[in-house]
Amino acid sequence: MDSQVPRRAVALVSGGMDSATALAITTQEGWRVHALAIDYGQRQRAELDCARQVAAAIGVESFDIVAVDLRALGGSALTAEIDVPKDRSHDEIGAGIPVTYVPARNTVFLALALAAAETRGAEALVLGVNAVDYSGYPDCRPAFLAAFEQVAATGTKQGVEGAPIRILAPLVELTKADIVTRGTALGVPFEHTLSCYDPVEMQGVWAHCGRCDACALRAKGFREAGLEDPAPRV
Amino acid sequence: MDSQVPRRAVALVSGGMDSATALAITTQEGWRVHALAIDYGQRQRAELDCARQVAAAIGVESFDIVAVDLRALGGSALTAEIDVPKDRSHDEIGAGIPVTYVPARNTVFLALALAAAETRGAEALVLGVNAVDYSGYPDCRPAFLAAFEQVAATGTKQGVEGAPIRILAPLVELTKADIVTRGTALGVPFEHTLSCYDPVEMQGVWAHCGRCDACALRAKGFREAGLEDPAPRV
Repeated sequence: MDSQVPRRAVALVSGGMDSATALAITTQEGWRVHALAIDYGQRQRAELDCARQVAAAIGVESFDIVAVDLRALGGSALTAEIDVPKDRSHDEIGAGIPVTYVPARNTVFLALALAAAETRGAEALVLGVNAVDYSGYPDCRPAFLAAFEQVAATGTKQGVEGAPIRILAPLVELTKADIVTRGTALGVPFEHTLSCYDPVEMQGVWAHCGRCDACALRAKGFREAGLEDPAPRV
Repeated sequence: MDSQVPRRAVALVSGGMDSATALAITTQEGWRVHALAIDYGQRQRAELDCARQVAAAIGVESFDIVAVDLRALGGSALTAEIDVPKDRSHDEIGAGIPVTYVPARNTVFLALALAAAETRGAEALVLGVNAVDYSGYPDCRPAFLAAFEQVAATGTKQGVEGAPIRILAPLVELTKADIVTRGTALGVPFEHTLSCYDPVEMQGVWAHCGRCDACALRAKGFREAGLEDPAPRV
């Protein structure tokens, strides 16, 4: 491909700080990015508003929401009425797969991004996964991403006809502190991101609970980066 | 696992003859099957009714429909307003990937089946794909299925914790005639299956057009098996 023609990518955006930073890195590298948010029946509907705000602030070619009703399948604290764990230590967070795991979530998300990439003529899927300071989800690790690239290569018209679709996971080897530092340098609007599994609405904005695993990892990242988190907290 | 305990599988059912036969083979082998139909915004809504009727006739543990709006992504004659090709020869059908290809459809379907399998504690996904007399879709071939099994092994809680989820594709090496013969022997209610990409409603039932690629492959199967197709035709 002519290097003067910007290449297209489809970036999954969740409203959280990781996907926002991955999106900013990808656009800064010169990709033309189509943002895709998935409405999977998450209890935290505010995530989709955050995803839209963040994508608009960073600048994308398009922003779409695709709905898939994972609630019909149940099985996670993020979609069903199961309590979100609170006040766990960093060691506890890293040990085992928690109840906030949504069965096959990233597989479903990447499958939808793959469908979007084929219709958009995109060459890459962008995912803000991170396998260092993470919640122990299996579908955030490099082995999973490599396996999915094979699915894209063998199972799509585009892959078979000679233009394989890669997965870009620019955060996979970073710590949360690295992500905060990098995102801040790129001007990611962290004040509009929402990481919390159990946010509280305060005067029309969503505030982080400060106690779930996602809040604990986020706080650790800002603390170790020596920066203040601009997002609202209870 | 104790061989006396029936193992669980999640079978994708489309309302067509292939998934119906795959379902019948799997239940006959002693699996406890949860049927899963995907409402992906297909133009032919009758498919979902057929899927439900067929699953009930064959006998399943459960029947669920999960909705995912692939129409939002466009790109196929099966979801968008693109004409379905008619009156193509068998050689034309086998050459290249047609406009009825839905981008990444089987990847999306398997991803949803994988999510269902994890919540159901199932060990297998059943897919009625066939790579002999087929429409040239890349996501029907063994290389794709093997790649997806790796995704299941690396990207799910169940895969990581030691019980990998297999893909059963009992029709993958069969001809359409083999499928007709096998399905008829197992009592598959072919009269309730709908293969057509462009069916016509006649007196309250859906009749096959007889001219699209799917109808051509179906007719070839019944002809070569020496059996009469019991499903209505225009």
